[in-house]
Amino acid sequence: MSEEIRVRVEPLKSFCIRIFKKLNVTAKDAAVVADNLVAADLRGIASHGVARLGRYVKGIQTGIIRPRAEILVVQETAATALLDGGGGLGQPVSSRAMHLAIQKAREAGAGFVNVRNSNHYGIAGYYAMMALEYDMIGISMTNSAILVVPTFGRNSMLGTNPISLAAPAGQERPFVLDMATSTVPRGKLEVYNRQQKPMPRGWATDESGEPTADASRVLNNLVESKGGGLLPLGGSGELFSGYKGYGLALMVDILSGVLSGAGYADNICTKDPSGQPKPANVGHFFGALRVDGFRSIDGFKQTMDDLIKRLRNVPKANGQNRVYIHGEKEFEIEEERKVNGIILHPKVEQDLKSLARELEEDYDLDP
Amino acid sequence: MSEEIRVRVEPLKSFCIRIFKKLNVTAKDAAVVADNLVAADLRGIASHGVARLGRYVKGIQTGIIRPRAEILVVQETAATALLDGGGGLGQPVSSRAMHLAIQKAREAGAGFVNVRNSNHYGIAGYYAMMALEYDMIGISMTNSAILVVPTFGRNSMLGTNPISLAAPAGQERPFVLDMATSTVPRGKLEVYNRQQKPMPRGWATDESGEPTADASRVLNNLVESKGGGLLPLGGSGELFSGYKGYGLALMVDILSGVLSGAGYADNICTKDPSGQPKPANVGHFFGALRVDGFRSIDGFKQTMDDLIKRLRNVPKANGQNRVYIHGEKEFEIEEERKVNGIILHPKVEQDLKSLARELEEDYDLDP
Repeated sequence: MSEEIRVRVEPLKSFCIRIFKKLNVTAKDAAVVADNLVAADLRGIASHGVARLGRYVKGIQTGIIRPRAEILVVQETAATALLDGGGGLGQPVSSRAMHLAIQKAREAGAGFVNVRNSNHYGIAGYYAMMALEYDMIGISMTNSAILVVPTFGRNSMLGTNPISLAAPAGQERPFVLDMATSTVPRGKLEVYNRQQKPMPRGWATDESGEPTADASRVLNNLVESKGGGLLPLGGSGELFSGYKGYGLALMVDILSGVLSGAGYADNICTKDPSGQPKPANVGHFFGALRVDGFRSIDGFKQTMDDLIKRLRNVPKANGQNRVYIHGEKEFEIEEERKVNGIILHPKVEQDLKSLARELEEDYDLDP
Repeated sequence: MSEEIRVRVEPLKSFCIRIFKKLNVTAKDAAVVADNLVAADLRGIASHGVARLGRYVKGIQTGIIRPRAEILVVQETAATALLDGGGGLGQPVSSRAMHLAIQKAREAGAGFVNVRNSNHYGIAGYYAMMALEYDMIGISMTNSAILVVPTFGRNSMLGTNPISLAAPAGQERPFVLDMATSTVPRGKLEVYNRQQKPMPRGWATDESGEPTADASRVLNNLVESKGGGLLPLGGSGELFSGYKGYGLALMVDILSGVLSGAGYADNICTKDPSGQPKPANVGHFFGALRVDGFRSIDGFKQTMDDLIKRLRNVPKANGQNRVYIHGEKEFEIEEERKVNGIILHPKVEQDLKSLARELEEDYDLDP
């Protein structure tokens, strides 16, 4: 077995920044995107880390993502705003939107900002967590390319539409929920496909709308728009309340896509009718709530600590030795990787090397 | 088979109002509680309808619920507030909190109000839907008595903690998500128990923390605090992402219980250590977002209509003929019941008759 590939955090960020700058992205925006991608790798969410760099580069090269988009404030009240991302990278406009939500919360108690005309924004939790240092509760949602079937439907109509909420604690680590509203992400099907393992029924449906264990079939059907797709949280039909996951995905689409005037449902499209790629018009939704708009920050944090301890100390189910708080696993991975470096999948390392060659940038991440 | 018992809406409301007034509840508060309970029955959610009247009455009679509680505004900013319910009925303080959230949204664009020191507030969707007539998006959450086990935990630590979000549409009916964050409610186990049917594994765990098909065992364990309980949305362990349902339940507990300074986790207790009932100190969370704080109301409603049509018209899975929008089934039941009357379960009718006798009120609901 080959050795693990580990790379340091700062050189990896610098590499991403150089790549984006080469593509005419401003230094400031490049730094935001790089920070967001590397934050995902630090937290162990490789699917949203530098593994995505190639896709972003291709998006800019093909004109689907604008490297220097103008961000406009379209609407604004004391506690709300709508930004237009100008078809640019998702991270810079999202970071700006979340900062605006925080500023509004500082002044009015709560701030909610959404974004239209954007692209993939990385991990949802990145933005929700921005609120933590201000002793606020942060909220982040986005819609995305359609992969998920509505309950009783045959075709995918919704994205994996994640919900993130971050809340500060005192001595304990913050609570950071960051979850797709599908049962599993597409990447999980890809793992089962590579290993040629049958999937648990309840993850995805085939082209007739029936639950299937055949990951390869589902992935092919998605690519060829033949029907079927990922199941919402709760699975197929009503027996395990899959309509709840469907409802959460739809809620995210309404707040991110409909409320912002971005794409929504199968109206978020990555191809035009002739099969050519087109701008996705993704929508995002951000919120910040000032804790002391409700109660004292100290009181809140003490209670959070107590809540977390109660959950951690609950008697465990047979065969289990730990109850987790959301975000805890990711904080532990982050602490380890900050010391020992980020683990790159060999294929991702190869992709980064190819990108470096293509864009004539040095690849200087060897351990 | 005996005939269905149907009662008219207005006489049923009046009956509830008379019962509450007899218990020293003000006419205004009695009207709010009655409207909330009957709204649940109208929408087909019998578990939260007048079937609860007896429990509310008992709560007041035993001193657990105060019939004339003073509501205090504890904290307030332009877009946030915290109310103290004074240990009274959940509905009057919740109605006031949602009205305050709407008023704040009208002035600031967004309004978020939570409530501590409250009791059961009925269906979550009732408050979220209050925002609709103001062309706002409404949000409502509450924590509740613990029934749900955290992922890998043996004991119940969280309530079925519902999430509701209502969004207006144009020609179409509004979107009304109103979902418990557990896979199924306790009432579903009671149905399986009465019918002596095995439950699907994935609804609940036994006292060792293992999924079980034995509803009677789970219900007994819950009463005797022997361990086990309802599973969060997504079921047991990680295979179907039960930690997401657990995360949503915890998010609701943080927003409703921790942020308000109410009870939370197993700190919401309905009994003191000696087994005597004590006030629950339930917490709620309400929000309103003004649609035109983001985009035009007409534009939003047209897009909602289009979103709903796209979902309704999606090809159906094998054997299915309809894809629902959240709230749609309930609106259809409501329309039918407004014409033909509310269906009462024979046991509920008996309970209402007993209450009438006990409190020396007329029972005038015979068809």
